[in-house]
Amino acid sequence: MHRTYSLRATRAPSAQDLQNPPPPVSSTKAGRFFGRGSLTHSIRRSTAGSFGPELARRLAVLVKMEKNVMRSMELVANERKEVAKQLSYWGEESDDDDVSDVTDKLGVLLYEMGELEDQSIDKYDQYRVTLKSIRNIEASVQPSRDRKQKITDQIAHLKYKEPNSPKIVVLEQELVRAEAESLVAEAQLSNITREKFKAAYNYLFDSIREHCEKQALIAGYSKALLELLDDTPVTPGEIRPAYDGYDASKQIIMDCESALRDWTIDQATVKPTLSIRRTDAGYVDENGEDWDATKEHDTHAKEDEPQHA
Amino acid sequence: MHRTYSLRATRAPSAQDLQNPPPPVSSTKAGRFFGRGSLTHSIRRSTAGSFGPELARRLAVLVKMEKNVMRSMELVANERKEVAKQLSYWGEESDDDDVSDVTDKLGVLLYEMGELEDQSIDKYDQYRVTLKSIRNIEASVQPSRDRKQKITDQIAHLKYKEPNSPKIVVLEQELVRAEAESLVAEAQLSNITREKFKAAYNYLFDSIREHCEKQALIAGYSKALLELLDDTPVTPGEIRPAYDGYDASKQIIMDCESALRDWTIDQATVKPTLSIRRTDAGYVDENGEDWDATKEHDTHAKEDEPQHA
Repeated sequence: MHRTYSLRATRAPSAQDLQNPPPPVSSTKAGRFFGRGSLTHSIRRSTAGSFGPELARRLAVLVKMEKNVMRSMELVANERKEVAKQLSYWGEESDDDDVSDVTDKLGVLLYEMGELEDQSIDKYDQYRVTLKSIRNIEASVQPSRDRKQKITDQIAHLKYKEPNSPKIVVLEQELVRAEAESLVAEAQLSNITREKFKAAYNYLFDSIREHCEKQALIAGYSKALLELLDDTPVTPGEIRPAYDGYDASKQIIMDCESALRDWTIDQATVKPTLSIRRTDAGYVDENGEDWDATKEHDTHAKEDEPQHA
Repeated sequence: MHRTYSLRATRAPSAQDLQNPPPPVSSTKAGRFFGRGSLTHSIRRSTAGSFGPELARRLAVLVKMEKNVMRSMELVANERKEVAKQLSYWGEESDDDDVSDVTDKLGVLLYEMGELEDQSIDKYDQYRVTLKSIRNIEASVQPSRDRKQKITDQIAHLKYKEPNSPKIVVLEQELVRAEAESLVAEAQLSNITREKFKAAYNYLFDSIREHCEKQALIAGYSKALLELLDDTPVTPGEIRPAYDGYDASKQIIMDCESALRDWTIDQATVKPTLSIRRTDAGYVDENGEDWDATKEHDTHAKEDEPQHA
């Protein structure tokens, strides 16, 4: 959030940042040749599938499409920030003190939403990079499959043409080696795919949860800010009572700032309720064990317990 | 969410939809002449300020910029959906049952995120339309200001040129009328601006809170889904235990579906903590009265009370 409680300043790292430091800036944010229009997007997407080994193509397309998503997210983030500035710029013009103050503070909060969106893009990039490593292992497994296939074909061919050629024996030994190699390759493929897949999406969903809860927080504080604006209608010529909300509005920004700064994933309040749990035996319902150790998938905070104890 | 728990179906209205029905489809979704690139955006934005009465210009720009934001949000929403499809398409290719099942179900959830984003755009449009009505009243007040100014100038001019011309009296009577009219106009401006401003942003922030909490929910269920994927490494040649997660994965989707369907704004769990409260006397801290009647701005759910009672 902005130290000065207005639209210019530097930001301090939040508790969540300290818990796990933010990733490097997304690679998609640099190096544009054309604009970010959908033309580029469709080109990128359509070309992706047409190169590289068969096995890795679908994922290659997915990775490219994710790049499109990120480019679009960037657009939104940047435009949100501009909107925030324009809002406080508009309020500045109106000669009401309260409209001007509320819009300025609201601008700060909306700008912060844009900032959050910007950070979530960097996280999104980390997820995308992890997907790439799956694509790479897929690509590297292809040759060993091809080689195995090729040798098998050669043997079949020879057996048909000259059934008792000595080359057959040699080829069959080669085939055994190729099969061994391919066994290893397939095992690597399966292991790395699963490991990276889980890692990538767990990271993505955590970052989504962080982003969403923080945005919901900001929205809540923004609503509190709106309360400061007195909207009781006045009759012509009547003078509105002087605006006394400066301290309040600043306090709201500060509260919001500290709430965002202290937020960590463990404090996430939006939680799913699962009607089945996992046990070593398999999956049982309600009266079974917990889904897993972490409380995460345990219960849904929207149960009617008092949130405001 | 998708009735078929796969990527094709129709959607049932959620509890929140029933509580307050969804707005009409956003007007920005139709009628594009160029692509949605930033070129169009910058044109739209730069032209906005240059027409219309002085008073309404800044807000006119803001409204146009919001349109840009919405166009970009659309891009993201659509691309998210495409990504979701591509993910389940990729999983389909992999010969593992569990990767294929998990990716397909994950696709459903990610697609739903796109759907939610799409709905939030329609809500965003409602907010934008309300801003427009402020812009319109601003524009309509301008003439009465101008008229008042013009008459004042005429009087000053006459008083200087022919101090005892009879026209001065007439003009002064006109001025009185003009002042009366402008008093009313200014009162209308102030009243409508405040009323619409609060309405617009309260609506916006509520829709943001809904969108964020629902997305966080989906992210939570998606993480539960990932748990189904067995990522214990296998040695070359070893066969993985058969995948038994079909019921579980389907159940997770159903749980997520019902959670989204039953969600209403009253159940929102992410709440701000305010260190100052509003009283009739003004603003006091902690030991003062409540901020306002609604529990909304009352306490922050991320206090360390057990979420899983």
